[in-house]
Amino acid sequence: MPLDLAAIRAAHARIRPHIHRTPVLTSTRLDAATGGTLFFKCENFQKTGSFKARGATNAVLSLTDAEAARGVATHSSGNHAAALARGARLRGIPAFIVMPANSSAPKIRAVEAYGGQINFCAPTTRAREETCARVIAATGAMLIHPFTDERVMAGQGTAALELLEDCPDLELILCPVGGGGLLAGTAIAVKSIKPDIRVIATEPAGADDAAQSFAAGHRIPVDQPATIADGLRTGIGEPNFAILQRHVEAVVTVSEESIVAAMRAILETLKIIVEPSAAVPYAALLERKLPAAGRRIGLILTGGNLDLDALPWLKT
Amino acid sequence: MPLDLAAIRAAHARIRPHIHRTPVLTSTRLDAATGGTLFFKCENFQKTGSFKARGATNAVLSLTDAEAARGVATHSSGNHAAALARGARLRGIPAFIVMPANSSAPKIRAVEAYGGQINFCAPTTRAREETCARVIAATGAMLIHPFTDERVMAGQGTAALELLEDCPDLELILCPVGGGGLLAGTAIAVKSIKPDIRVIATEPAGADDAAQSFAAGHRIPVDQPATIADGLRTGIGEPNFAILQRHVEAVVTVSEESIVAAMRAILETLKIIVEPSAAVPYAALLERKLPAAGRRIGLILTGGNLDLDALPWLKT
Repeated sequence: MPLDLAAIRAAHARIRPHIHRTPVLTSTRLDAATGGTLFFKCENFQKTGSFKARGATNAVLSLTDAEAARGVATHSSGNHAAALARGARLRGIPAFIVMPANSSAPKIRAVEAYGGQINFCAPTTRAREETCARVIAATGAMLIHPFTDERVMAGQGTAALELLEDCPDLELILCPVGGGGLLAGTAIAVKSIKPDIRVIATEPAGADDAAQSFAAGHRIPVDQPATIADGLRTGIGEPNFAILQRHVEAVVTVSEESIVAAMRAILETLKIIVEPSAAVPYAALLERKLPAAGRRIGLILTGGNLDLDALPWLKT
Repeated sequence: MPLDLAAIRAAHARIRPHIHRTPVLTSTRLDAATGGTLFFKCENFQKTGSFKARGATNAVLSLTDAEAARGVATHSSGNHAAALARGARLRGIPAFIVMPANSSAPKIRAVEAYGGQINFCAPTTRAREETCARVIAATGAMLIHPFTDERVMAGQGTAALELLEDCPDLELILCPVGGGGLLAGTAIAVKSIKPDIRVIATEPAGADDAAQSFAAGHRIPVDQPATIADGLRTGIGEPNFAILQRHVEAVVTVSEESIVAAMRAILETLKIIVEPSAAVPYAALLERKLPAAGRRIGLILTGGNLDLDALPWLKT
């Protein structure tokens, strides 16, 4: 099934009973700080604490009974792992999750809480992929890739669908980019419904492979990502990059300082918890890298799984 | 004007254009942790970050033009100060705020941001009252007491009004008690609309003057309050205590450890910011001090003005 608006609408119909319709928050203070009129789509309130519940649930519920019979598998250190474990439990099938041994304790607990079966591996891409391949060979489970899977991308696009229903007259939509699953779904949804809305990808300068790739016209692998935005350390996927090239107006990078300042402003002003990756679009506005003045701007707050023992402004 | 349901409804009509209708959040995980079905009224999302905007706005807008002409005054180290400053600005009159010199920087900034004129004083009740009396003598401003003022109490009662509109079939309502302004308004609103709902006051064991007073049958002054719940260090007011005696079923105290655990659970699970005082009702459920099992319970999350540089679980 190609990734198009029909696929995203079908995903929405499929997952709607199992996810939250998340609210859109506004703030006169954050508007004043940036000059724009901002609409924050709160995926930090989503099931499992991030938008990943959308894509993972759509993927699991899209499987035929034969495909689903032996369960699902993935490798992830983060939000996709918990989302897939929950999706599998909804369907009553096992989820085999390969996690690097240095994953944070809260992320491990979340996967366990949803009944995921964890296989730990060394913290390298190669070890993750090899371990995952071994688990799949042993179990017959279906691989659900965190961002190149089209069913996952279609599910992630449902957040933008809801945002456009609530705020039809947006002029800009800002979305973080890591592997590019959310960005792909968002771009397809937005450009299919209202092509005039500009879609801007935002990423940390310390993990700017999407910006480099966009400038070069071909994918440049991420080299030693260095950012607190742990959800955005992954390099962009191949199909995701193709969609980015076709549908995204610009890729904006932000400093670590801006990410921390943006995160803090969101916590203090909106009184909600977001993780560092979720603050990246607002950081781009704080850095004045986009013409915000007088514009109606949608921002996707991607997740709220923040480690409360390690707030970045308290690190010494 | 006596504090009754009519006064609370009139307050609601008066302040509604100037405050947020705050949402009521639910969480299957927090339900599972306590055995009840919980409804969190999110006054942390209220204007100025706490329910205090309700009472202060009602008081300021209730003044005659002659009463309002010379502005309003109060002494407060916390949320009432910012709320009164904002209320005065809405009406275009000055607000004279007496604050202890050791008030936290964020609280001082909030009052300044709303245009309040601050007079600092020594951090004792006596210095606060004397300084406030001097300011009133010099300016002719109208005293708006943070919790014994009936217009303030009526305004605070509007949070319960909204909660009962959204969740009419509650069986218990849990409310923190410090000076008792919110408790008084809540108790009158709830008992007037649906007398069967039990109203429970909750407070830190380290500032348990309401519990002691309730047991003794007369007011016992607060002696050296020791709690991180800075909004609840004040002793209960005289009219507030009379309402508590008449309308409140029980006063439950909680430990500092429970307050911190409750706060952390709310941040991690609801993904929202609350200040320590706001976590006290949920702490009472965590301590199993109330028969929660199977019951529909309303909790007022009173405010979200948390100092993000001083999270209690990070103190060493």
